[in-house]
Amino acid sequence: MASTFGEIFRIHTFGESHGGGVGVVIDGCPPRIAVSAAQIQRELDRRRPGQSEIVTPRKEADSAEILSGIHDGLTLGTPIAILVRNTDQRPASYEEMASTYRPSHADFTYDAKYGIRAPSGGGRASARETIGRVAAAAVARQVLDGFHPGIEILAWVKSIQHLEASVDPATVTAAVIEGNMVRTGDPALVEPMIELIKAVRSDGNSVGGIIECVIRGCPPGLGEPIFDKLEADLAKAMLSLPATKGFEIGSGFAGTMLSGREHNDAFRMVEGKVRTASNHSGGIQGGISNGEDIVFRVAFKPTATIMSSQQTVTASGENTTLEGRGRHDACVLPRAVPIVEAMATLVLTDHLLRQRSMEGR
Amino acid sequence: MASTFGEIFRIHTFGESHGGGVGVVIDGCPPRIAVSAAQIQRELDRRRPGQSEIVTPRKEADSAEILSGIHDGLTLGTPIAILVRNTDQRPASYEEMASTYRPSHADFTYDAKYGIRAPSGGGRASARETIGRVAAAAVARQVLDGFHPGIEILAWVKSIQHLEASVDPATVTAAVIEGNMVRTGDPALVEPMIELIKAVRSDGNSVGGIIECVIRGCPPGLGEPIFDKLEADLAKAMLSLPATKGFEIGSGFAGTMLSGREHNDAFRMVEGKVRTASNHSGGIQGGISNGEDIVFRVAFKPTATIMSSQQTVTASGENTTLEGRGRHDACVLPRAVPIVEAMATLVLTDHLLRQRSMEGR
Amino acid sequence: MASTFGEIFRIHTFGESHGGGVGVVIDGCPPRIAVSAAQIQRELDRRRPGQSEIVTPRKEADSAEILSGIHDGLTLGTPIAILVRNTDQRPASYEEMASTYRPSHADFTYDAKYGIRAPSGGGRASARETIGRVAAAAVARQVLDGFHPGIEILAWVKSIQHLEASVDPATVTAAVIEGNMVRTGDPALVEPMIELIKAVRSDGNSVGGIIECVIRGCPPGLGEPIFDKLEADLAKAMLSLPATKGFEIGSGFAGTMLSGREHNDAFRMVEGKVRTASNHSGGIQGGISNGEDIVFRVAFKPTATIMSSQQTVTASGENTTLEGRGRHDACVLPRAVPIVEAMATLVLTDHLLRQRSMEGR
Amino acid sequence: MASTFGEIFRIHTFGESHGGGVGVVIDGCPPRIAVSAAQIQRELDRRRPGQSEIVTPRKEADSAEILSGIHDGLTLGTPIAILVRNTDQRPASYEEMASTYRPSHADFTYDAKYGIRAPSGGGRASARETIGRVAAAAVARQVLDGFHPGIEILAWVKSIQHLEASVDPATVTAAVIEGNMVRTGDPALVEPMIELIKAVRSDGNSVGGIIECVIRGCPPGLGEPIFDKLEADLAKAMLSLPATKGFEIGSGFAGTMLSGREHNDAFRMVEGKVRTASNHSGGIQGGISNGEDIVFRVAFKPTATIMSSQQTVTASGENTTLEGRGRHDACVLPRAVPIVEAMATLVLTDHLLRQRSMEGR
Repeated sequence: MASTFGEIFRIHTFGESHGGGVGVVIDGCPPRIAVSAAQIQRELDRRRPGQSEIVTPRKEADSAEILSGIHDGLTLGTPIAILVRNTDQRPASYEEMASTYRPSHADFTYDAKYGIRAPSGGGRASARETIGRVAAAAVARQVLDGFHPGIEILAWVKSIQHLEASVDPATVTAAVIEGNMVRTGDPALVEPMIELIKAVRSDGNSVGGIIECVIRGCPPGLGEPIFDKLEADLAKAMLSLPATKGFEIGSGFAGTMLSGREHNDAFRMVEGKVRTASNHSGGIQGGISNGEDIVFRVAFKPTATIMSSQQTVTASGENTTLEGRGRHDACVLPRAVPIVEAMATLVLTDHLLRQRSMEGR
Repeated sequence: MASTFGEIFRIHTFGESHGGGVGVVIDGCPPRIAVSAAQIQRELDRRRPGQSEIVTPRKEADSAEILSGIHDGLTLGTPIAILVRNTDQRPASYEEMASTYRPSHADFTYDAKYGIRAPSGGGRASARETIGRVAAAAVARQVLDGFHPGIEILAWVKSIQHLEASVDPATVTAAVIEGNMVRTGDPALVEPMIELIKAVRSDGNSVGGIIECVIRGCPPGLGEPIFDKLEADLAKAMLSLPATKGFEIGSGFAGTMLSGREHNDAFRMVEGKVRTASNHSGGIQGGISNGEDIVFRVAFKPTATIMSSQQTVTASGENTTLEGRGRHDACVLPRAVPIVEAMATLVLTDHLLRQRSMEGR
Repeated sequence: MASTFGEIFRIHTFGESHGGGVGVVIDGCPPRIAVSAAQIQRELDRRRPGQSEIVTPRKEADSAEILSGIHDGLTLGTPIAILVRNTDQRPASYEEMASTYRPSHADFTYDAKYGIRAPSGGGRASARETIGRVAAAAVARQVLDGFHPGIEILAWVKSIQHLEASVDPATVTAAVIEGNMVRTGDPALVEPMIELIKAVRSDGNSVGGIIECVIRGCPPGLGEPIFDKLEADLAKAMLSLPATKGFEIGSGFAGTMLSGREHNDAFRMVEGKVRTASNHSGGIQGGISNGEDIVFRVAFKPTATIMSSQQTVTASGENTTLEGRGRHDACVLPRAVPIVEAMATLVLTDHLLRQRSMEGR
Repeated sequence: MASTFGEIFRIHTFGESHGGGVGVVIDGCPPRIAVSAAQIQRELDRRRPGQSEIVTPRKEADSAEILSGIHDGLTLGTPIAILVRNTDQRPASYEEMASTYRPSHADFTYDAKYGIRAPSGGGRASARETIGRVAAAAVARQVLDGFHPGIEILAWVKSIQHLEASVDPATVTAAVIEGNMVRTGDPALVEPMIELIKAVRSDGNSVGGIIECVIRGCPPGLGEPIFDKLEADLAKAMLSLPATKGFEIGSGFAGTMLSGREHNDAFRMVEGKVRTASNHSGGIQGGISNGEDIVFRVAFKPTATIMSSQQTVTASGENTTLEGRGRHDACVLPRAVPIVEAMATLVLTDHLLRQRSMEGR
C-alpha cells in the first residue's frame, strides 16, 4: 500500500504533478465532525508555491474541491474525497526531463522500479503529492478537536544550514512562527535566514535544514507498544516526506553523549498528575505517550533542483550534462513546516481513534 | 496492529518477559525455502544475554522451537510459528516493580494505556520481545538468499558515548565485527569501548551510542514511492526498537550543512550500470533503492536500568525513591547489533516480495 | 476499511449519489499495462441506467475521467484515480427522504450507525457506488490479460423469480449474454423474462433472482488456504453488493443432498493435466483453484423501491406511511451482471498478484 | 494475509495437523477482560473429536496453553498466544497420502500452489486449524460480554441431507441444542439424524447438511456500508471454513421467489424502538445491523473422506485408485456448530470494536 497511511483514520493519496490532479481519499473519519472547505484551503495555502518572496514563484492556485463524505459542513462517516486540479502546463524542458535523469531526484529509481515514468515535473515524486496529506490533515485536525480538545501541534524551522534558531518548544506560539515568512520560531534568526536563502538562490544553489515540532497537550496512553510505537509511526511519517534524511525524538542523537543517570527522566507527582522532571524521552516511553510534550526534529537535505550544470546520465545509458534552468525553491523548509505538522496530525489522530476502540467500558 | 510488521512477509510477535514464552508467527513466507533450526538459533545466540563479559550475565538459553510451517527443513508457504520459552523466575524485586514506576521505562505508560500491566521484568516492553523479530529475520535471510542472492546486511557499533569508530561501510566485514565482543567495525576502538562499558557498569551507570548499518548488493527498484518509502520503513523499523531515539540515512542530519551543489549525487555510467559518484542519498532516492549501498545510523539512549537511587512515583500516585539493584546491561549496543540487522532484513525481504508481485511479465 | 477491497490490487471507492461524484482509487496496479478510457467507459455503460427498456429510465451519462496513474495509455504503477461526476439534481422527494425511512433500504441503519445521513438518493448506499468497482475492474481486466492471458469471466441471469434459465457454464458465450437486454444465457427465456419484468413494473412491484458466474481458464494454485480462501473472498465480494442475500459455489446448497460418494470429484489425468471427472467443487478445493471452471451463484432480493404505499417510521420515531413515486428498476439483475463480473475480476486479479509475490524463483 | 482475520480484533492462526501444534495469536484484544483457560477449553471440547458416538473416534485431548497476553485471569491488551499441541502420530497411510491426491481434498491444490505439502493428515488444510479460531472466539466472547452484554450467538444443525429440522431462531435455546449429540434445534429430528449418520458411516459413506445461526441482541449500527458489510464479513467467515459451499442470510435464495411487496420489511415503532414487522433482511440492511435477529445459513458438503475405493491420480501424474481406510467423520455438522458460532463471534466482536473507535464523543 504505497499510497495509504494510517490504520483507522486512513488516507489514500493519488495524483501526479501533471494530469488531472492530485488529491486524497480519507476513510475511517468519524461522522458529524464539522469541516469546512475554508479550513482545508487555509492549510493548502500554507504549503502553496508563490506565497512569499523566498519560495518558488510558480503560480498554482491549489484550490480544493470536496467530492464526497461531507454534507452541509459535517462529515458523514463515509470516504471523504478531495481533489486539487493541476494546471498542467507542459514545461519547456519536457523532452530533456523525459530522457535525462536529474541528480538526486527520483527519475532513475522510478524507471528502475516501474520501467515507466511520468516525464513531467517529477510525476508522482513531485512534492505536489503532499497536497493530499495536508488536506487530509486539515480534516484530522477537526477530529482531534472533536474527540480531545486542547492538543496543539506546532512545527518551525529550527535551522537552515549553519543558522540555528533558539526556540523553546514549551512556549513557542503559532503567531510567532506564522508571523515570519521563514516560519522559524526565533525572531532573531528571521532576517539572517531570509538573507541566506536569497543569497543561495541568487547563486543558483540550495540549502537544507532542520524542522522541529512539538505536540502539546497529548494525553498519556496514545501509541502502541511494539511496531506501531508512536515515535516509530512519527519517524515513518516524517521519512515519507520528500527530501528528509533524518528523524530524532527527545534527546535524539545528542542523547547518546549522556549517561543513564543524566538521561533518565525522574517521575514526580505534580498537581495530582504523574509528570517527569526532565523530558529526554521526548514525551514518549515504550512507544506510548506519557503526557509530556512530544518533541522531535526532522532533517531536510538541500533541494535537489539547482541552477548549475551537473553530470548525469540519460535514460538510454549515456553520460551527459544537465543544465540548470527554470525556477526552484532554494530552500524547502518554510513550505515544509505545515507538511510536518500535517503528518504529525495524521499520526496522532489515527492513534487517538485506535485507542478509543480499546477503552471506555 | 501493534504487533504486526510487514505487508507480504508479515510477522506477528507475542509474549511477555514472564509467562509461557515469547515468539513469532511469520505469514507470507514463500514455500520451499531451506531453513534450519540451527540458523535461527545462531541469530538468537547473537542477541542472547550472558554471551560475553560486557553484557548482562543473566542466564537465558533462548532455545527456539519451530511449531509449524517448516517440514523436513523446507518452508511450506504456511505460517511459521516459533516459540522461545521463558525461564520465568519471578524476580526478587517483583513487589516493587508492580507498585513503582521505573524512570524512563514503560511502566507508567502501559498503565496509562491499558490500566493493567504485567508487573515482572518489563512484561511486553521487555527487550525479550525482540527474540521474535530476530527469529523471523533468520527465516527472512534465507528468503533473500533464495530470491536475490548477494545482498549483505551488516551492522556495527559506530559509537559508544564519545568514542566514535572509524568504519568504511563499503568494505567492513562480518568477520571484523563479530570478531570482537563490542561488535564495532573499528579494531582500534575495541579496547577503549570495552573499558568504557566496564567502567560505567562498575559505577552502576549506563551509556548509549550509535549503530550504523549497511545493505550492500541491494538491486535498484525496491521501495515504494509515497508512504512506504524504503527509508520510511527502515526508520519505523528502527524506532520500533527499544531505547532508540533517532534515525538518519545517507548524509543525515550532517547533510543539512551542505549546499545542494555539494550534496547532489551525480550519475555516471560505470560498467554499463547507472551509478552515483557520491552517495549522500544513502542508496535510496524518492523512496526507492538506486543500487548503491544503503547506509543508515540509529541512536540508542543509555540503558534506563541503572544501579542508583532514583526519584519516581508509585502506581497509586505518591512520590517515592527507587533503589537500583540486580544485574543490567550497562550498554545495550553490542546485543542490539543483530537486532538492527534483523529489522533491516525484515524490511528488505518484505519490499523484495512486494516488488515481485508487480514485475516480471 | 469499509471502502477498501483487495490486498495487493487494492481499490478504494468513494462518493455519494449526490455531491461531487463517485469514483475509485486503485493502488497496487502493476506498471506498463495498456488501459484506455474507452475500455473503462464500455464497462460503465453496461451498468448504466437507461440502457434498455427494462431498466430505470433515469438519464445518467456516467462518464469517467482518469485523474492519475495512466500516462499515454499505460499504467504508471502509481494510484489510478477515476472520477464520475454526479448530475446531482435534488429529487422532488428530498424532504420526505430526509425524514422517512424507506423500508428495506439503509436509511435507518445509516442513521443508527452514524447519526447522520446524506438524505438524497441513498447517499453512500446508492448503487452508484458500484461505478467505482466497475471502473476498477475494467483496469483489473487488463492486468489479467497482461499477466495470464486466457482467463474468461462471464456472468448471466440464471433466474428471475420462478423463471430459471438453462445455461451450460462451460460453453455459454458473451455474445449470447450481451445479445439480449436481460443478459440471460438462455435464449428461450429472454422473452418470458422481459415480459415478467415489464408486468411487474406496470404493477409498481419488483422481482429478484439469481446471477450465475463462471471463471474459465483460471490456472491452478490461486487462492489462500485459510481465511482468504478464493471462495471466501468471492463470497465476501458478492455479499458486498447491494441487494444480495446469498452465495453458493459448485454444488452449493443442493450439494447437501448428495452423499460423499456422489459428491467427490475423482481426479483423472487428461492430456497431461490433473483434471476432475465432475466439478461439484466448483473449481476450488481447500480455498485454492484446481484449474476447473469456477462456478458460483448469487441471490438478489427484489428491489426495495416499489411504487406502493408502505408502512414505515420517521427519523423522529413516529409511524407513518410512505407513498411510492418516481422511477425505479423493477429488476436489478440485468444491470447487476457486469457488477458481478467486476467483483469476480477484482478478486481474481488480487489473488493472481498475491501468488506472484511467492513464486517463480 | 492468508491466516489473519479481523481488522481490530485480529487473529492469526498457525499450525499443521502434524508438527509442534496448532494455535492462534490474538492482537487487538482490549485490556482487563476476564478470560479463563477453562472458558477456552470448554469451547475446544465442543469441537473435539471423540466427544460422542457419531463423530470420529480419534483421541485428541486438544488441551490449550495460554502463552501470553493474560495475567492473573485478565487480558493485558497485548497479543494473546494460545497453543494446542499435536499428538503427532504419523499415520499408517503416510506414504500413500504423500504420493496420492485424495479426491475433493486440498492435496492437489496445495501442491499446485506451493510445490510442497505437509504430507500427513491434511497438513494446514486439516480441520485442526479451526482450533485456533475456536480458542480466539472464546476470548472474543468475553469481550462481547464486557462491552455489550446480552448478545447471544447460537448455531444448530438445520438439516442433514434430506432431514430438515424445524427451528424458530427467535426462541431456540443453547440447552436444547447442546442437549443432543447432533446439535440440532429440533428434538423430533435428533433420533432420525443420529440414525442417518450411523447408517451412512456403516456404509463407509458421508453426508452434509446445513447449519443455521442466529445472533440475538445485536445493537443497531454494527457493520460497514461498502465492502465490509456485516453480511459480507459473515459470508467470508463462513466460506473460509472447510467443507462449506454456500451462505445465505435472511430470505436467502428462497427470497428470490418473492416480490418486492412481499419481501420488504415494514418499519414499525415498538416500545420506542424502530423495529421491522418481518425480517426478510435477516437483521442487516445496507451492510449494517438493524437490531433485529441476524439469521443466516451455511451449506456443508458431505465429508470428502469416505471408506470407498476412488479413482484419482498420483503426485507424479499417473491415474491410480485410492482405497478408503481408517476412521472418519461421516458427518461434520455436529462438530461444525461451535465453529460456526466461533466465526460469527469473531466477526461481531471485530465490528463492535470498529464501531467504538468512531462513536461516543
